[in-house]
Amino acid sequence: MTLPLARNIYFTGFMASGKSRIGSLTAASLGWKFFDIDKLIEEKTGKTIPRIFAEDGEPAFRRMEVEALREVGGQGPMVASLGGGTLINPEAIELIRRNGVLVGLHASPEVILERVNRKKESRPLLANLDDESKMAKIKEMLELRKPLYQLADLHFESDEKIPHHVLTRRIIHRLQVDELKPLTVELAERSYPIYVEENLAGHLDSIAAKAGCPQRFLIVTDQNLKSHQKRMLEQLRSCLGDCRIFFFKSGEEEKSLKSLNKLFTFMLRHSYPRKTTLVAFGGGVTGDMVGFAAAVYLRGIDFIQAPTTLLSMVDSSVGGKTAVNHPLGKNLIGAFYQPKAVAISLETLSTLPPLEFLSGMAEVVKYGVIRDPEFFAFLEENTEAILAKRPDLMRQVVLRSCAIKAEVVGKDERETAEGGRAILNYGHTFGHAFEVLGGYGAIPHGLAVALGMRVAARLAVSLGMLTAADEKRQNDLLDKLGMPKHFPRKLDENKAWDAMGLDKKVDDGSRVYILPKRIGEVVPVRDVPKETVLQALAVARESKGP
Amino acid sequence: MTLPLARNIYFTGFMASGKSRIGSLTAASLGWKFFDIDKLIEEKTGKTIPRIFAEDGEPAFRRMEVEALREVGGQGPMVASLGGGTLINPEAIELIRRNGVLVGLHASPEVILERVNRKKESRPLLANLDDESKMAKIKEMLELRKPLYQLADLHFESDEKIPHHVLTRRIIHRLQVDELKPLTVELAERSYPIYVEENLAGHLDSIAAKAGCPQRFLIVTDQNLKSHQKRMLEQLRSCLGDCRIFFFKSGEEEKSLKSLNKLFTFMLRHSYPRKTTLVAFGGGVTGDMVGFAAAVYLRGIDFIQAPTTLLSMVDSSVGGKTAVNHPLGKNLIGAFYQPKAVAISLETLSTLPPLEFLSGMAEVVKYGVIRDPEFFAFLEENTEAILAKRPDLMRQVVLRSCAIKAEVVGKDERETAEGGRAILNYGHTFGHAFEVLGGYGAIPHGLAVALGMRVAARLAVSLGMLTAADEKRQNDLLDKLGMPKHFPRKLDENKAWDAMGLDKKVDDGSRVYILPKRIGEVVPVRDVPKETVLQALAVARESKGP
Repeated sequence: MTLPLARNIYFTGFMASGKSRIGSLTAASLGWKFFDIDKLIEEKTGKTIPRIFAEDGEPAFRRMEVEALREVGGQGPMVASLGGGTLINPEAIELIRRNGVLVGLHASPEVILERVNRKKESRPLLANLDDESKMAKIKEMLELRKPLYQLADLHFESDEKIPHHVLTRRIIHRLQVDELKPLTVELAERSYPIYVEENLAGHLDSIAAKAGCPQRFLIVTDQNLKSHQKRMLEQLRSCLGDCRIFFFKSGEEEKSLKSLNKLFTFMLRHSYPRKTTLVAFGGGVTGDMVGFAAAVYLRGIDFIQAPTTLLSMVDSSVGGKTAVNHPLGKNLIGAFYQPKAVAISLETLSTLPPLEFLSGMAEVVKYGVIRDPEFFAFLEENTEAILAKRPDLMRQVVLRSCAIKAEVVGKDERETAEGGRAILNYGHTFGHAFEVLGGYGAIPHGLAVALGMRVAARLAVSLGMLTAADEKRQNDLLDKLGMPKHFPRKLDENKAWDAMGLDKKVDDGSRVYILPKRIGEVVPVRDVPKETVLQALAVARESKGP
Repeated sequence: MTLPLARNIYFTGFMASGKSRIGSLTAASLGWKFFDIDKLIEEKTGKTIPRIFAEDGEPAFRRMEVEALREVGGQGPMVASLGGGTLINPEAIELIRRNGVLVGLHASPEVILERVNRKKESRPLLANLDDESKMAKIKEMLELRKPLYQLADLHFESDEKIPHHVLTRRIIHRLQVDELKPLTVELAERSYPIYVEENLAGHLDSIAAKAGCPQRFLIVTDQNLKSHQKRMLEQLRSCLGDCRIFFFKSGEEEKSLKSLNKLFTFMLRHSYPRKTTLVAFGGGVTGDMVGFAAAVYLRGIDFIQAPTTLLSMVDSSVGGKTAVNHPLGKNLIGAFYQPKAVAISLETLSTLPPLEFLSGMAEVVKYGVIRDPEFFAFLEENTEAILAKRPDLMRQVVLRSCAIKAEVVGKDERETAEGGRAILNYGHTFGHAFEVLGGYGAIPHGLAVALGMRVAARLAVSLGMLTAADEKRQNDLLDKLGMPKHFPRKLDENKAWDAMGLDKKVDDGSRVYILPKRIGEVVPVRDVPKETVLQALAVARESKGP
């Protein structure tokens, strides 16, 4: 409910579709004024609508409607329920669209008949008819009015199965989501939005609806979050219709086909159909696994990323690289499979442990170096406030990082273009070696990447590609953020060389390095002599002191 | 080598690229005549080329070349090697293209220099130069001639690493493959060809090359085929550069994530890179598993289907549905992932056990019923010859079945359109129940489908959609082929109803039946009363006798 909503809301729909009831509840819930256009006209003229029709004629009534719309429209933000035929008049539609959103409520003929009979008030059009004739009349009129109601910007079912307060909440949340301006990862029919807000846990159903996802959900998360994100997890569950939650055991070593199979067994036992939306709530491991599960369960179902760590917000949640580990290496079994949406709630950052925050910041600095000198300067200028996680700055940090990643991924979805998606690997080739040498988990991914960026910059300087001043600038920022300057153990450069190779060997045999030319630009470089690389690696070695 | 080749072959390339050597070997291998255009002109004129240039000028020489091309072109099929500058003349290109294919041979400047120095014969352009000047000259001329050589229809590297006979075979096979007219599954950038020939085992490298697949191969097959298809497997292996073969254990129960993981471990141990082509050689189980392995190994690599059973030829190899089983059901974990090509060698059918052949024929009949009355009539008319596996008829049977499947899949790749790909499930909903009730493996898939088609037709008749005459026509053909008329055990229709439901429950809750309206057309039908379905199921029950 923290999201802003600025436009007037107009409800349209057939008689007894719930326009007035849902309209007034919506207004109450928002603390806005509510107007029933028909009633307003009746009050103003002191005549009932049938009398106006009879005495003044329909054209006169339509003019009164426009008059009323003009009047209430200026008193916004407000909610109004329209008459059954208001939209016949193009002038009315234009007035509504000018600063409002048109919400259509739909009910089946059976529900309408039931409601009409229940209420005391007369419905002149259906007066004095038996049920069968009423039903015939309702169906006839529904068919006739259908094109009008189709004009609505949003459509909601209003039947007895959904409690009014739930429907009201759903409408408000959907309207709020519609007013957000997400980033987009442009991938033709696989494009998707990235939302970055304070807290989106209560809006995930609306984000899913807008993205065209099925409304049957399963949240998949990590056992650690049961306590660490208890409140948000509950919010999420409640928003998603009290759906089930599946918990993975925590840790990189659980990122396996075996853990995945446990999820499949759970889903099959509970008969989750193809029309299911998985929600990945957690860090990178959870996101990668849930994405891969979505890619292969019944040959592919929808999923949404709801990352809870800085690293997963700015890196793994965006881009569709999903995978599990194999005993012989990380992320070797997987798929390129895009989420339907990414919903980032910055609030989760407040409880993030310092080392995990730092790990994410390494990737953030990386975006500056590979692509965006202005962003890099912004990080330099605001280092302290960022370390204090000042919300407005964190928002910018995450937004800009995601925007850069979205741009790179949009141009090279499957990492096939030379100098395409591979530039995101800046610092990663060396970082990978540090992770392997440290033993996975000993040195956090982001910190290994930061160290890898130092090595890459040094290599670039020694190849004459980068100035020493730019190397220093990168390293100063890393220092200021508190990134490690050295590999925490004894470093054997030759072992690092071997550890580094694995990923690349799997790729095509020759070693490619992503190296900076300046702050804001990196390029792939091949065939660097081993000696030169070993020398660059030495910058990560603990110095012997003065 | 059994594939036809009709066009003249013209070799072009820089000096010492091997035009004459490879050209004459190609001709010898095909039993065709060979002409060296330069030599032909020298013989005719009694002058050396340099002398013709000097005395008559280049324009005269170019006219002589055209003359020679016209003369040899009429003596085809033949192979000719062109002079280094023949393609300068557009008239020559036109003559070549008229009934021939232009093959470009390419060698690096280093290889060219080495060859030039090795040979005694004088290369006037390079005479009296030291190695450095020769190299500079070669590079300069290569750059100059590049646009000419790029005119070739096909390009081959001709270096010392590839033995001449291997290169010759590769060229011939590639030309043969180019003359084949495969079916195409039209899926935009995922489109792929289906080749149907007697034996393609020796041409798979060329099919892969034409499809743009990496030339590093791994054959994956089923342990049973080690003996059953020993000869073809060896042919395949030899054609694919003596690549490794990975054997899955045989049987539906081995179609699991666990078996898949064994393949991954094997591939990772041997460092198969992203640029690997998997070749699935075997039946449906192998094809489904290899396809899924290709979909997720390093997030997706190329694969080719080389099916060895009738069922997999006409069904699972085409369409990109890949999967493994889960203890809770068949094919529940998988991906839509298209092969780069399907290569069907009809020869494998000759050793196929009768029951497996029959199982495939059930799907064949299905194609007639769902889409093609003419094909159905063809099957009726040729039943006996088909049962005798007459090669020309089997070719038509497989081609037409694949064509229908390709058409249906092309319109609805991911089975999302109403009445799209789902029509391929004709007979399968009921068939599935029979498979479950029988215990998987007890009743072969195709035979269960045939029985399911009988039930579906009866249901259609009882709903007034299909004439009894058309039902009889379908069943008569099934009878004539020797398909079972009844479920081989005691049939409990209520249990069948429950067994049938599972797949659909997983899909969206309501039961959809694919039912025939006539021979050649089926439609999806929803909400059929349970009683009506149970009655139709009773046709599969063993009759009590008279």
